Amino acid sequence: MRVPLPRRLGALVVALSFALPLSAQEGGTRIPDEAIGTAVALRDSAMAGTGAFGIVESLTTEIGPRMAGTEADARAVAWAEERFRALGYDRVRLEPVTFPVWHRGHERAEVVAPFPQPLLITALGGSVGTGGEAIEAEVVRFGSLDELKAADPASVRGRIAFIDQKMERFRDGRGYGRVVGARSQGANEASRHGARAVLIRSIGTDSARMPHTGMMRYADDVTPIPAAALSIPDADQLARILERGQPVRVRLDIDAETRGEYTSHNVIGEIVGSERPDEIVFIGGHLDSWDLGTGAIDDGAGIAITMEAGRLIAALPERPKRTVRVIAFANEEQGLIGAYAYAREHGGDIARQIIGAESDFGAGRIYALRAGVKPEAREAIARIGEVLAPIGIAYEAEGGSPGPDVGPMVQRGMAWAQLAQDGTDYFDYHHTANDTLDKIEPAALDQQVAAYAVFAYLAAEAEGDFGSAPRTGGD
Amino acid sequence: MRVPLPRRLGALVVALSFALPLSAQEGGTRIPDEAIGTAVALRDSAMAGTGAFGIVESLTTEIGPRMAGTEADARAVAWAEERFRALGYDRVRLEPVTFPVWHRGHERAEVVAPFPQPLLITALGGSVGTGGEAIEAEVVRFGSLDELKAADPASVRGRIAFIDQKMERFRDGRGYGRVVGARSQGANEASRHGARAVLIRSIGTDSARMPHTGMMRYADDVTPIPAAALSIPDADQLARILERGQPVRVRLDIDAETRGEYTSHNVIGEIVGSERPDEIVFIGGHLDSWDLGTGAIDDGAGIAITMEAGRLIAALPERPKRTVRVIAFANEEQGLIGAYAYAREHGGDIARQIIGAESDFGAGRIYALRAGVKPEAREAIARIGEVLAPIGIAYEAEGGSPGPDVGPMVQRGMAWAQLAQDGTDYFDYHHTANDTLDKIEPAALDQQVAAYAVFAYLAAEAEGDFGSAPRTGGD
Repeated sequence: MRVPLPRRLGALVVALSFALPLSAQEGGTRIPDEAIGTAVALRDSAMAGTGAFGIVESLTTEIGPRMAGTEADARAVAWAEERFRALGYDRVRLEPVTFPVWHRGHERAEVVAPFPQPLLITALGGSVGTGGEAIEAEVVRFGSLDELKAADPASVRGRIAFIDQKMERFRDGRGYGRVVGARSQGANEASRHGARAVLIRSIGTDSARMPHTGMMRYADDVTPIPAAALSIPDADQLARILERGQPVRVRLDIDAETRGEYTSHNVIGEIVGSERPDEIVFIGGHLDSWDLGTGAIDDGAGIAITMEAGRLIAALPERPKRTVRVIAFANEEQGLIGAYAYAREHGGDIARQIIGAESDFGAGRIYALRAGVKPEAREAIARIGEVLAPIGIAYEAEGGSPGPDVGPMVQRGMAWAQLAQDGTDYFDYHHTANDTLDKIEPAALDQQVAAYAVFAYLAAEAEGDFGSAPRTGGD
Repeated sequence: MRVPLPRRLGALVVALSFALPLSAQEGGTRIPDEAIGTAVALRDSAMAGTGAFGIVESLTTEIGPRMAGTEADARAVAWAEERFRALGYDRVRLEPVTFPVWHRGHERAEVVAPFPQPLLITALGGSVGTGGEAIEAEVVRFGSLDELKAADPASVRGRIAFIDQKMERFRDGRGYGRVVGARSQGANEASRHGARAVLIRSIGTDSARMPHTGMMRYADDVTPIPAAALSIPDADQLARILERGQPVRVRLDIDAETRGEYTSHNVIGEIVGSERPDEIVFIGGHLDSWDLGTGAIDDGAGIAITMEAGRLIAALPERPKRTVRVIAFANEEQGLIGAYAYAREHGGDIARQIIGAESDFGAGRIYALRAGVKPEAREAIARIGEVLAPIGIAYEAEGGSPGPDVGPMVQRGMAWAQLAQDGTDYFDYHHTANDTLDKIEPAALDQQVAAYAVFAYLAAEAEGDFGSAPRTGGD
């Protein structure tokens, strides 16, 4: 999971949700009663135990880290293709996704004066390096990106800008969007102010000595400068050293660059609909991970949950009416590259892309069902919610947002659902070396498989649609 | 904190504790009533807040990691000397401690086949490197050091031995002694079996991606081979990869060596006794740390607790009868080098070394007072326990062991006390990069300052001794 919902998309979500009253509409979308029984059986079967943990165990063990553009990216694609086939999907295919390749080499930082000691950092995705030699400069601290923006450039010029803003912990992860600008935009603002490099406090909620990586991107108008994240204890340490009031000099030695292009693939498994095979309900996650951990919660869990949900549907005696498509997206982390490729390929026929949901917020249990659908379909979503209520999932008629890889399709007008996960500890591990299999509770995965299986099956059985239609006009 | 109590010393502890009935003895050691009032005031003052957190904040921020023999070792010694003076100690002095210097360079490991991916390791203290180039070999796993010992050398020869024994979590840390042999002796056993290197599962209780370092030592009869610890998630990962049944090849590239000698110092601060200045009650911690973290819980906390306890005693209107000595030991981590130097210097006059206690088990609250004293002094220890009871510390007449740096003096016959800390989470952070200031709760330090101040003050005021006497004969 990479980025918060862009502001434009947020406005669209609200528009879709509230354009009309939320009460049941005449002639609205309906979930047939006979489908409910099957959905309940899917749910109960999943809650009794699924193969999801085994899938994420296989992905994280046999592939491990799988950063976009690495040799492990190709191994992950082959793994996903083979896995879909082994799980009994009707059709499996690859769709190409091409992007520039970011390489991480070494990354070292140390306080040179007044108190020499190492600092643990990791380069941000997309960052340049320090040019083959170390940069040594005085550090100037800012409590937020806004403070840096407002700073006198004379106080920043020639220095290393240090953005030290704390992220707050919430179940829904909303603390992330409030501070992630330091990561995505910190280098741009620092460069505009004449800094030689930018260090940020990791965007995370833990107190482990684990820097959090994540994507940044240089604006066209700036000179690229190196950008790296300090672990949270290291950010605290640097702040304490600065508090002493003496000039603090830091040396950075980062080897990183973007070079060449790579073609990976969205890997797609389908359970072909019995009556309307060209109408698609999609669920999925992203196959790539950052390089530091093994991508267990981000997003091996999402891949495992949705692959296994599809398998349960594929194992039913009859195919659902619509096609259920499970998508393992390529290169989410570096800018939803796979999702945009998917939208270019499939967004032209948006009315047949009935609804989509992505699992990309870790491995915590689902507590809410939300959706961005037409008012006439609210009742159908509420009906899905009734099936999910016994496993701790509440239907919420307002709010929510689609998963990141669903976004580009939503921008084109597709309806979406959100099975909101408990992300209380998600940002303890997110984008760190600590994103490993042991952070996943198998029973929590089973609950999520149950939710995705019920959602995808009932959406595929629904009479009537959820409001997917080409967007016209502004937002 | 480095090593469990040697077996010989354990036997001695039992001998001291149980040689005679534990009941009060005629003519036993007494705590004067008038001293109790002062001790209660010391306790209550400390519980209301102390400067201990500020001391460990200063040490970990201004010095940071301070591995024995590094330039930071010298800065730490200067820091301690200056700090003792600033805190109002009567006398401050340095005593030289000389040892060979172990250097850590880089350390890298990766699975080469069948599933290429990095593994996070750290070299064990004392280890040799891989000789300027990487070692690549097949891995063979053992569930314990004993399994390796029992293995057919043909199954180990030319391979990398992987010792994968789990450590259990206990309040008193007793899980450590059960498995630490893999660290201290793993390379010896592996080398005897013809292995090219040894990898151990970190001796720790966490699930963070943080390898735990710690000391090992080559036996005279073995060819030194590189020894490193995998983080616990990495050990799990390697075990999972091995479970697939294919040959697993790992590449190790470690730069480490022991070269040269260094002279550091035990730093000693004293509050000189008013009546019997040549009788010593000592408390202390160790000043060195491993290089990975900033040595906050191991053992900045112990330094801060005991320095601050001494300061509270120094701030009393009158000096206690005996001298209270606070010792910041040099190089505990690499083999109690400072403690042995201290024992050589002061162990000849053991009867005047009245009693000693070290704080070196993290920063968790103290829950028990135990002691290795003569039977006639049990009543006095129990009386000290009564003063500590209101702050959650129970006197336990049996069991316990002295802190590691107290050990060499106890071997010579010195009485000891143990203020047993809650070490439930100690081995989550022990010897890792994660041993940083944020792991310390300031109020817990205050409670420990209270305990050490009360103990040291009352031991210095006691009428009669605790049984320190030269050891004669075997154990």
